[in-house]
Amino acid sequence: MREPNKRLAILSPIAWRTPPRQYGAWETVASNITEGLVARGWDVTLFASADSVTSARLHAVMDKGYEEDSTVDSKVAEYLHISEAFERAAQFDLIHSHYDFMPLSYTRLIKTPVLTTIHGFSSPKIMPIYQKYRDGYFVSVSDSDRATGLNYLATVYNGIDLTLYPLRERGGDDLIFLGRIHPDKGVHLAIEVSRLSGMRLIIAGIIQNEAYFREQVQPHLDHQNVRYIGPVDVAGKNELFARARVLLHLNTIPERFGLVLVEANAAGVPVVAMNLGSCREVIKDGQTGFLVGNVAEAVLAVGRISEIDRGACRTRVKRHFSIETMVEGYERVYSTIFDLEAKKRS
Amino acid sequence: MREPNKRLAILSPIAWRTPPRQYGAWETVASNITEGLVARGWDVTLFASADSVTSARLHAVMDKGYEEDSTVDSKVAEYLHISEAFERAAQFDLIHSHYDFMPLSYTRLIKTPVLTTIHGFSSPKIMPIYQKYRDGYFVSVSDSDRATGLNYLATVYNGIDLTLYPLRERGGDDLIFLGRIHPDKGVHLAIEVSRLSGMRLIIAGIIQNEAYFREQVQPHLDHQNVRYIGPVDVAGKNELFARARVLLHLNTIPERFGLVLVEANAAGVPVVAMNLGSCREVIKDGQTGFLVGNVAEAVLAVGRISEIDRGACRTRVKRHFSIETMVEGYERVYSTIFDLEAKKRS
Repeated sequence: MREPNKRLAILSPIAWRTPPRQYGAWETVASNITEGLVARGWDVTLFASADSVTSARLHAVMDKGYEEDSTVDSKVAEYLHISEAFERAAQFDLIHSHYDFMPLSYTRLIKTPVLTTIHGFSSPKIMPIYQKYRDGYFVSVSDSDRATGLNYLATVYNGIDLTLYPLRERGGDDLIFLGRIHPDKGVHLAIEVSRLSGMRLIIAGIIQNEAYFREQVQPHLDHQNVRYIGPVDVAGKNELFARARVLLHLNTIPERFGLVLVEANAAGVPVVAMNLGSCREVIKDGQTGFLVGNVAEAVLAVGRISEIDRGACRTRVKRHFSIETMVEGYERVYSTIFDLEAKKRS
Repeated sequence: MREPNKRLAILSPIAWRTPPRQYGAWETVASNITEGLVARGWDVTLFASADSVTSARLHAVMDKGYEEDSTVDSKVAEYLHISEAFERAAQFDLIHSHYDFMPLSYTRLIKTPVLTTIHGFSSPKIMPIYQKYRDGYFVSVSDSDRATGLNYLATVYNGIDLTLYPLRERGGDDLIFLGRIHPDKGVHLAIEVSRLSGMRLIIAGIIQNEAYFREQVQPHLDHQNVRYIGPVDVAGKNELFARARVLLHLNTIPERFGLVLVEANAAGVPVVAMNLGSCREVIKDGQTGFLVGNVAEAVLAVGRISEIDRGACRTRVKRHFSIETMVEGYERVYSTIFDLEAKKRS
């Protein structure tokens, strides 16, 4: 599917390094796509922070992600970083943006087609800009996370590097939570499940909402039954997966994709997730975990977790959520765009 | 100086309406330039919020300024508003931006020249983007507020509509402060001058720094000697000028321009300002007020304020800080740009 004469630009966010050291789902996916494309022989330029690690050609204007560099203004960094890719548009046959809505505002000033993977709609207030540019090219990361009226070419599920998360044949005893500490992610519900099931819970992730952490998480921490260990990198995740009986993901709003569910499944860890949004696409109910409607159902699901075949969890990730599957998905989308653009010109 | 075949776009900020109802210095200046250009026969399109008031052609994508509309995300509003002007670049011979550094990031994607009036550098962290685009066309609003290395074509002082601020032949008894409630503006120093001189102080302006207001302003308010009356519109400013003996402007960092100094002087109100930044250019020491180095000097200056001829204050504004003078200044700059662009093409 590679088109040898085509030059691709991947525009990654610069909140964090690509790939991120710890948190940074969008940068993770941008990295996985980039590396997957290079592995398949594509000519790829990655626009990311200068400390990024890639086998593609790296183009950087900011030394570090703005979340990792207090000397930098995030707004300045964004404008400098995004415009840099568009100023070089003529060098590319396609710009593939992973950087939210901002790059859309440059798309009508260049001739190169731009594909936007929408990794999530952070607020209804960002919809006006998507509506203005709805005729662009879009990919959703799950069927559930779509806005009406946008020119979607496909859903391409995020893919992970399975070699990073080896299968744990035997699970541990703990419940684990992995994600941003934010009400959306239902950390408080995971704590309730821990309490009701009498199982230990280990919580990992960046604190995105300080008040929520202080009021709904911290009071339950006791270094024993409920522990918070901060953000974790890949090694830290694997340590967690090794001791995990189940990953709890009781999000309170529809998840957009849920990369961590896939990572857990890859390691053989079953997932108990809320029956909302993309969780329904990522988790196969009864096969790679359970979809639940509330805390009571989650407790019951945890009790039945031995019914889940850990090997089957990994197999499903291999088939649907690997880098290769994702890159093949994008290759089909790129092909569609090249065809459409060729027709426009002829 | 008008060039009848040239079409101008004025890009105003959209924090507030153009002109603003109350606070909003950049929108005020953008409005004054627009109206001044139209009055002199130019073909002008103003990019501003839809509720803006102008005799130019108005192009708007946002109903209101984002500071006046809680349903709007300011970042989305900015990207939509700025890109709109650049997407229409081919319709203009010049885009004149008053909207900070963000529009610079679009300038290399269009052929129309862009002039940026830098109304202020809000932080050293924004300098990298000015440095990248340093070869653009820039105007400073005072000689003092210049960054090194930028391609400045001129300093053009901001101009006001003098008809809005009629001369008060006789002053009142009060000290007045007009500006954002922020440490930069030295409200606390004005309060000290009030205390030491035994004169009443009336403070007007938006509270930009809540903690500063709470800690350094509010404790001194007594409805008698020191009063805070909130933000004021033009009518409110005129009421203040009518009762003012002197305007105190004891800014703690170099002022960029200081529109309020000019407004006060237009009304015949002398100004005691810190001997810093653009105040040295706007206030003629001993003629339209006094430049001082500290609170003690400010108290002495207030005592000598009867030496200032109120009519001379207004005369100086007419000569140097009127809309007409400003527009003539910009016409010269536009002319320079048209010549430079013609040379580039030939």
